[in-house]
Amino acid sequence: MKEFELIQLLTRDLASNSATVAGPGDDCAIIDLGIPGRQVLLKTDAVVEGVHFLADTDPKRVGHKALGRCLSDLAAMAGTPVCALVTLALPPERPTAWATQAYEGMNALANRYSVAIVGGETTTLPERALLSISLLGTVPTGRGILRSGMKPGDAIFVTGELGGSLAGHHLDFEPRLNESAWLASHFSLHAMIDVSDGLAGDLRHLLAASRCGAELLASAIPVSRAAQQAGKGSAARPPLLAALADGEDFELLFTVASADAVPLMDRWKERFPDTRLSCIGRASDTPGLRLKHPHRVEELTARGYEHFA
Amino acid sequence: MKEFELIQLLTRDLASNSATVAGPGDDCAIIDLGIPGRQVLLKTDAVVEGVHFLADTDPKRVGHKALGRCLSDLAAMAGTPVCALVTLALPPERPTAWATQAYEGMNALANRYSVAIVGGETTTLPERALLSISLLGTVPTGRGILRSGMKPGDAIFVTGELGGSLAGHHLDFEPRLNESAWLASHFSLHAMIDVSDGLAGDLRHLLAASRCGAELLASAIPVSRAAQQAGKGSAARPPLLAALADGEDFELLFTVASADAVPLMDRWKERFPDTRLSCIGRASDTPGLRLKHPHRVEELTARGYEHFA
Repeated sequence: MKEFELIQLLTRDLASNSATVAGPGDDCAIIDLGIPGRQVLLKTDAVVEGVHFLADTDPKRVGHKALGRCLSDLAAMAGTPVCALVTLALPPERPTAWATQAYEGMNALANRYSVAIVGGETTTLPERALLSISLLGTVPTGRGILRSGMKPGDAIFVTGELGGSLAGHHLDFEPRLNESAWLASHFSLHAMIDVSDGLAGDLRHLLAASRCGAELLASAIPVSRAAQQAGKGSAARPPLLAALADGEDFELLFTVASADAVPLMDRWKERFPDTRLSCIGRASDTPGLRLKHPHRVEELTARGYEHFA
Repeated sequence: MKEFELIQLLTRDLASNSATVAGPGDDCAIIDLGIPGRQVLLKTDAVVEGVHFLADTDPKRVGHKALGRCLSDLAAMAGTPVCALVTLALPPERPTAWATQAYEGMNALANRYSVAIVGGETTTLPERALLSISLLGTVPTGRGILRSGMKPGDAIFVTGELGGSLAGHHLDFEPRLNESAWLASHFSLHAMIDVSDGLAGDLRHLLAASRCGAELLASAIPVSRAAQQAGKGSAARPPLLAALADGEDFELLFTVASADAVPLMDRWKERFPDTRLSCIGRASDTPGLRLKHPHRVEELTARGYEHFA
């Protein structure tokens, strides 16, 4: 069973209550705790040795990645992070330095965004390390950007560059919290998600939630240098496919009304001159995801990889 | 390195911010999110197959235990639970029914206490199942019961019966949320903790946080039937030692001013006639933990077991 199907099964008939504004199904859950003018955002995410990082990966980068993934999800809702809980499961023989360095990586990132690490737990896991983070943030009431707000005609944007993340970016990416906060305060974002499963897969999540289709312009998709390099070998993988499907890019994928597209691009370049922003396509009321090449249009069947294959 | 020492190392110099009222070191963290009259409590806890449950344990009971442990910690702060996040890590070949049944156990308990399960994550863990819960609750501002409020002369109470939890109680216990809410609304609780590491170990946590000592009356310690049964075999473990050290009882251990002891006991019997409450000793300004037998006093060196041995 694929991860997506399992999640669908597990999230049927979940216990709920009146504080729950939005449960599973978006980048974060939304909770109403009675804070004047604000709602609470919650997210949990885990990284597993041998699945999301390797046994010889620098534990500082593992800690950075574990917290960074949750922060990226919070950015995708235009939230402000507040605090995190950490669960660290380790083989008993693992040197203490592994744990302290993983915490070092987390703390450095947490301090950069004023996130408090307020609790945690350590437990034994005989075979491999696992690091799970739960993150709490807030957002002005009703201003969390959902996956479901895309409208036909919207311009589709993505930050940064995509593909080839396994060459290093997946361990060192900076969650797009500053960019997301700026975007949400200056423009009316219709829908947003972070690119973790791959551009095609995550765009499909937006389309499904918003009941839209989309056309992407192949030439507009920002292919990373890493994906271009990887495409040069004899077992070459086309760089465009890498950009569409690799995943773990942790960039923001969002849509705005088409009238906002040009002003957004202009002001972005002033505010974030060193970070690429690409308008990669347009939302449509025709279902499906199409990729436009100079002389043909292909129906896109490539999907992001499934974590739980 | 023992779990306790590792935690001390990891919680030095943690990232913090002005929303953090109390970070690691008590049953839950306390956060100020600006809710009028209330603070937020946060707790995370994980159970690992082969460590906290067995491969053939009914997954419903595993789900119950995983959420119940967090609820027990929340009860120990006199908090009201609101919502939980779930991380489920499973071997890929594990039948889907294991996951759905674990969720069934969690949902049943969550529904009983109006807790919403608002999000989660599933990931691959090749060798064994792991279930991690993060719980959010609230408490009236300044009314969370800490470990550090015990005063010399306080009467020390424990709910229920202790020891032999591995015979089944550790999978089926009911978190003492109702009892804790009643206690906090009717009496001035000075300090509270839930008994997870064993009475002796958890009382030591209270003593350390409160800079007190204590005398326990051996005959007053409520020994469970399971501990008494286990004490009858040839490899017998004294039932009193089991009650002091087994752990995973998930009972409330708390102190009140000595003047409150008798009224508390009287009113408890009216309110919870089927649940034992025992006054097991008294706080002292003499450091250390002493166990009084009819004709001798022993300095108690028995400690709860260490999860991360």
